[in-house]
Amino acid sequence: MTDVAAMLNAYPRERPQVNDDLLVICIQEALNCAQACVSCADACSADPSAAHLAQCAGAALNCADMATAVVRVLSRSTPYDADVTTAALRALAEACRACYGQCQKHALELECCQICGDACRRCAQACQRLLRQG
Amino acid sequence: MTDVAAMLNAYPRERPQVNDDLLVICIQEALNCAQACVSCADACSADPSAAHLAQCAGAALNCADMATAVVRVLSRSTPYDADVTTAALRALAEACRACYGQCQKHALELECCQICGDACRRCAQACQRLLRQG
Amino acid sequence: MTDVAAMLNAYPRERPQVNDDLLVICIQEALNCAQACVSCADACSADPSAAHLAQCAGAALNCADMATAVVRVLSRSTPYDADVTTAALRALAEACRACYGQCQKHALELECCQICGDACRRCAQACQRLLRQG
Amino acid sequence: MTDVAAMLNAYPRERPQVNDDLLVICIQEALNCAQACVSCADACSADPSAAHLAQCAGAALNCADMATAVVRVLSRSTPYDADVTTAALRALAEACRACYGQCQKHALELECCQICGDACRRCAQACQRLLRQG
Repeated sequence: MTDVAAMLNAYPRERPQVNDDLLVICIQEALNCAQACVSCADACSADPSAAHLAQCAGAALNCADMATAVVRVLSRSTPYDADVTTAALRALAEACRACYGQCQKHALELECCQICGDACRRCAQACQRLLRQG
Repeated sequence: MTDVAAMLNAYPRERPQVNDDLLVICIQEALNCAQACVSCADACSADPSAAHLAQCAGAALNCADMATAVVRVLSRSTPYDADVTTAALRALAEACRACYGQCQKHALELECCQICGDACRRCAQACQRLLRQG
Repeated sequence: MTDVAAMLNAYPRERPQVNDDLLVICIQEALNCAQACVSCADACSADPSAAHLAQCAGAALNCADMATAVVRVLSRSTPYDADVTTAALRALAEACRACYGQCQKHALELECCQICGDACRRCAQACQRLLRQG
Repeated sequence: MTDVAAMLNAYPRERPQVNDDLLVICIQEALNCAQACVSCADACSADPSAAHLAQCAGAALNCADMATAVVRVLSRSTPYDADVTTAALRALAEACRACYGQCQKHALELECCQICGDACRRCAQACQRLLRQG
């Protein structure tokens, strides 16, 4: 359990017309996705057949960095700007899509890629839902 | 629910003598702490009496940045180095201690500081437990 | 002086059709922008009239987080994906635009906002140039 | 050229007894180190003999994450706390030491490891100088 929902409710928001549940889910999925991606990149690098996993490791690190940034943007209400939020969500959705695509290729051989791919898919869906609703 | 434990179990680890449950708890507390701190800093800045909350906002941002870095260090098994891990956990514990101290001063007036202070305290404790056990 | 150009030349790249000079400039501007934004947000929070600067502090932190993520995405060649890079550059350009707009309002009273606003403008331009060229 | 020095001088500091030149150098070295490490980890992962470079890639990513966090802590004056700063600098110095050690092993074969190792060494030295002076 996280404090995401409690924190969002702890102070008056400037963020208009945003479905709070979708926002909380998106922040939680992005937090989880960032951690899974860092761990997956580490596992991919350490695999004996590492060279062919390099693209997967890199895509996971890109996704982790974008998810970390977007968690923070979504966690701030005061500077809310619809264009910033939209572009940030799109960038994270693209990074999740790319990492999911790489993880899919290795999901049968590597358990980390299966877990990480699922985390990316859920995170991308949470971003898309927030984008449609915004 | 996060994928932290599943990811840690998805590939052989180099990390010796580490209690897995304590490690998972520490990563989850640090993920939660980072998000709570970013949100708390935003709330503190936006408070009408913001100037006297500036130290609290800054301490929360320091804590968020350190927690984000330590989540990642703890999520990597391949480059495990006891001295790096120990110094990183100590740095996060200090940042949590400083933010907790600031949040305590405002916990009665600001709900965000109460939630964030608790998150910092739990995260600092998880770091200390991992340090003692390492 | 940074090692950005030297590092980009130190290994074979997968990144096609990218002007190296524009890429190096964009990474350097984003590194500088991230640091200036963190510092500016701290200065804005600490200002005696902090409450009216809260939006500026928040916009600067959003921009710092996005710039930090994009530096990393641009620094990786192996997982190069045109759609990820494009969306990331657009997200950073938006965050720079929002922070520049806030900083402009305070540039005459606060030197930090003048410096930070300039850093954001240069970073946004470097992103736009890379987007046009991509 | 960065705006690090200009930003530090743009607002009154709470940071006592800190040599400004050493602080500026440390922030700049950490910014550079973070970028070099991300790029080096990418190059190491993509090398045909990647598996034996996995520790190097991981150490570089740990160092990048710690350097990114410490740049931000050092860039904030308002929440200055000597214990937080000291622990953060020590953690970065350890991460630089570990990455330098890994890069040294591959510096003759891989140019990225030579550049990145140098960047880590300079960053560790800048941290140590700031620690001695604090």
